[in-house]
Amino acid sequence: MRVRPGSYHPEVQQMESANSTDFLTATSVVRRAGTPGTFDSHLPPVWDTGEGIDGGILLAVAARATAAATAVRAERFFPSSVSASFLTASRPGPVRVRTDVIQRGSRFTTSQVSLTQRAEDDREIERMRALVSHGTLASQASADTPLPPVITPPSACVSRDDAPGGRAEHLGHLAGVDIRLTPECAGWAFGAPSRTGHFDGWFRLANGREPDPLALLVAVRALPPISFAFGRVGWLPTVQLTAHIRGYPAPGWLQVRTSTKALRGDHVIEDAEVWDSAGELVLQSRQFAAPV
Amino acid sequence: MRVRPGSYHPEVQQMESANSTDFLTATSVVRRAGTPGTFDSHLPPVWDTGEGIDGGILLAVAARATAAATAVRAERFFPSSVSASFLTASRPGPVRVRTDVIQRGSRFTTSQVSLTQRAEDDREIERMRALVSHGTLASQASADTPLPPVITPPSACVSRDDAPGGRAEHLGHLAGVDIRLTPECAGWAFGAPSRTGHFDGWFRLANGREPDPLALLVAVRALPPISFAFGRVGWLPTVQLTAHIRGYPAPGWLQVRTSTKALRGDHVIEDAEVWDSAGELVLQSRQFAAPV
Repeated sequence: MRVRPGSYHPEVQQMESANSTDFLTATSVVRRAGTPGTFDSHLPPVWDTGEGIDGGILLAVAARATAAATAVRAERFFPSSVSASFLTASRPGPVRVRTDVIQRGSRFTTSQVSLTQRAEDDREIERMRALVSHGTLASQASADTPLPPVITPPSACVSRDDAPGGRAEHLGHLAGVDIRLTPECAGWAFGAPSRTGHFDGWFRLANGREPDPLALLVAVRALPPISFAFGRVGWLPTVQLTAHIRGYPAPGWLQVRTSTKALRGDHVIEDAEVWDSAGELVLQSRQFAAPV
Repeated sequence: MRVRPGSYHPEVQQMESANSTDFLTATSVVRRAGTPGTFDSHLPPVWDTGEGIDGGILLAVAARATAAATAVRAERFFPSSVSASFLTASRPGPVRVRTDVIQRGSRFTTSQVSLTQRAEDDREIERMRALVSHGTLASQASADTPLPPVITPPSACVSRDDAPGGRAEHLGHLAGVDIRLTPECAGWAFGAPSRTGHFDGWFRLANGREPDPLALLVAVRALPPISFAFGRVGWLPTVQLTAHIRGYPAPGWLQVRTSTKALRGDHVIEDAEVWDSAGELVLQSRQFAAPV
């Protein structure tokens, strides 16, 4: 497994901008003086989906804060498992991040993390709670893992610029990413859902930034909800999401497949798999969405 | 979706026995006076795998305690999602269960739960921390979910009694369950691993008890680790497990398929699907195992 020391930066950074489309800037965390394990971050409005800040951004903020709190060495440790309960919709603006290291092993360190925001009446409201395990890589190279499906290349896929008139306005939160959907999977946007139970597409960060392990957490939520494939074009909140990150992605496009085996009424379990440009399976995730 | 009011008992029960093979008795919790949201339970030695108490029992204890703490109505609410980090190996004996309700919605209530035990030097050691969302059922009947694969019926499958000489002694923790593995998938036990990437089998509780939603949490961990299918017959600790329970199982055998798409060296991501005797997909789970 490739490891590129120094190219992954979980450590605390200054928040350079209040409304950045740049992934690393949008997910930066600043240590809060006097309260160990506590961080501040700022959720940029540009990542607002209209139903709250993109969940992938929240997961990345949580993973970066726990990495900083546990002082894991970035060249050896990854956020191997991130398991989150989404409690209320996050809004643009300040967010408080509290971390608590609950177990240090020789190869895995597990933390709990909570993201909260202040309501207008100054009450503190919890947005997300998660358990994050930072761990070392596997003992040997890949084996027995599936190659990515062969799909239409990005240049021949559907992008947000191809969306029917007016629809792209709802996609403002996607300014930080470049998403392509294969033509076979994009029928829902034109009134002809594929009903195949999966979406195939491509993902990369905007601004020319290459993917890192945390960007994978945004990739798994970037394609349209899998229910769209069945013509149910409506939003459902994510109740729970667990992602397992398997390594450092190679530079270039990420290939994403989302699928469901279990669409029951308004309860949806959606899986995602992400391969890097070298054909390595770098992430598996599953989320459960339902009216809350 | 079938619902059988009264047949699912998350509420507090007396601990009838210190070493019960009965699932409901083994997972019973007793409210601790004076400390709200705190419960005592007792992990029976019979559920010890040799590497610690069976993780499914811990998940069921956590789910029952959070159900009791949140006072969810058993005839309407299920432990829809249980997401756990396993921190240290649990031992037979007393366990303290602390619950904390972190979000109450109209259709989902999410709690955090922590299981701890006392070490010999009286230090309190955390065994497992989990997030549990109790929720209502989906709005309509099943659709677009896969039927179970057609496999060898239980009567023609391999049971623990068929294990080669001496091996069954290591399976003492399985006294509370009846597990069958299809002959095609049992080759590993006889030195001829199938290398197919999946195990098919059947599960039921011992003592004639019919399955309930919490028994599903034991079912997903009852088959051998999927790495056995590749001839790697050794134990790996589970770091993280997330299970989504989709409904109340019908009486009778549960059909279980475990599989992996991602076996990389000593890191294993294993999926499980459980169907009830009516052919309904009642659970999907995924666990990540690795040396800790």
